[in-house]
Amino acid sequence: MKIGIVGGTGDIGEGMALRLSSKYDVIVGSREEIKALATCETCRETLQVRGLKCSLAGVTNQHAVDEADIVVLAIPFKHVAPTLKTLTGFEGKIVVTPVNPIERTAYFYYAPPPEGSAAMMIKGMLPSSATVCAAFNNIAANKWQMLDEELDYSVAVCCDDEGAKQTVMELVDSVSSLRAYDAGPLAAAAIVESVTPLLLNIARFNRMRDVGVKFV
Amino acid sequence: MKIGIVGGTGDIGEGMALRLSSKYDVIVGSREEIKALATCETCRETLQVRGLKCSLAGVTNQHAVDEADIVVLAIPFKHVAPTLKTLTGFEGKIVVTPVNPIERTAYFYYAPPPEGSAAMMIKGMLPSSATVCAAFNNIAANKWQMLDEELDYSVAVCCDDEGAKQTVMELVDSVSSLRAYDAGPLAAAAIVESVTPLLLNIARFNRMRDVGVKFV
Repeated sequence: MKIGIVGGTGDIGEGMALRLSSKYDVIVGSREEIKALATCETCRETLQVRGLKCSLAGVTNQHAVDEADIVVLAIPFKHVAPTLKTLTGFEGKIVVTPVNPIERTAYFYYAPPPEGSAAMMIKGMLPSSATVCAAFNNIAANKWQMLDEELDYSVAVCCDDEGAKQTVMELVDSVSSLRAYDAGPLAAAAIVESVTPLLLNIARFNRMRDVGVKFV
Repeated sequence: MKIGIVGGTGDIGEGMALRLSSKYDVIVGSREEIKALATCETCRETLQVRGLKCSLAGVTNQHAVDEADIVVLAIPFKHVAPTLKTLTGFEGKIVVTPVNPIERTAYFYYAPPPEGSAAMMIKGMLPSSATVCAAFNNIAANKWQMLDEELDYSVAVCCDDEGAKQTVMELVDSVSSLRAYDAGPLAAAAIVESVTPLLLNIARFNRMRDVGVKFV
């Protein structure tokens, strides 16, 4: 299975490339191909030190979409709409959104677009044959890159297509100690995305780092 | 410390009375005093079987407010505004809201009032000298009553007064294995309340029961 990461050179994107490329073919996308190639080189070195083989390719965001079965949008919310407007070829793909629209004053809060959630906005911007799936929303960016740390968290997955949802839940379950939970249709993604500002507040007000969530 | 439970004869209210009355003076309120007295009698019997002493009084909701230092609003969201309109005497009290505005179609979703959250609506209905504190929002009603089960969950607490927040966090920490976390000001309560429909969806779509949450 080929996993394309749009924004694969950011914190979450690079961490995902590290965690996924020893199990899947990972295609790291970036606005500039040279940056994607550099990220792949860094990842390869990190994994080689640990004796792990990997499958990584560095390309443009457009090529990452073109070549992937599953496209992960590893980009901040504010860049999602501008980036999607420059890309085509999502027809028939599974598109995973870990994106959370968050704003901050004295505390973090959920600031969804008029569509109700980042997930629903993304669905509205893509062709109808693309299947959008919210997943990985509540995992701290730092944790992705700390390969020596178990990711022992619950991951809520929202999607309107049962087959695509199953595929993404299996992908989630294959990463470290993550455990996927079916959290309903894509319209229910708002309450998944909004857990992230809560976790940021918990970290901030209790002097903790990289707080995650488990359903128990 | 005297804890008054408005709506103390409902599922959550009775469960709270069971869990709190062996450590605090609990005043169970109800629209009808006779129901409150019956709930107290049931609780006393349950606790006596376990060899636990308790301090319980059954009164009207108004008397529960009048006599308590901390008032818990253990009522469904739809009853909150009508109930608060019938009650007075909240001046100087700490008012704890575990209330979650939730609606349901094929899935559960967060349906806050125009104020942004149940907590902010409640604040707007009470005198300014009352201190509203969101807590206990994400604990399944059933679990309160199952005395043989540990409540091993995280509890996010939102409040604008640091002293009142500390008092409520200590109350949380005294119940079973609950652990309180400072989740910021009351305006941040929306993202705490909205975890509850997520947990209900997780339970529903994964055939689980009484799902709770831990911050890890």
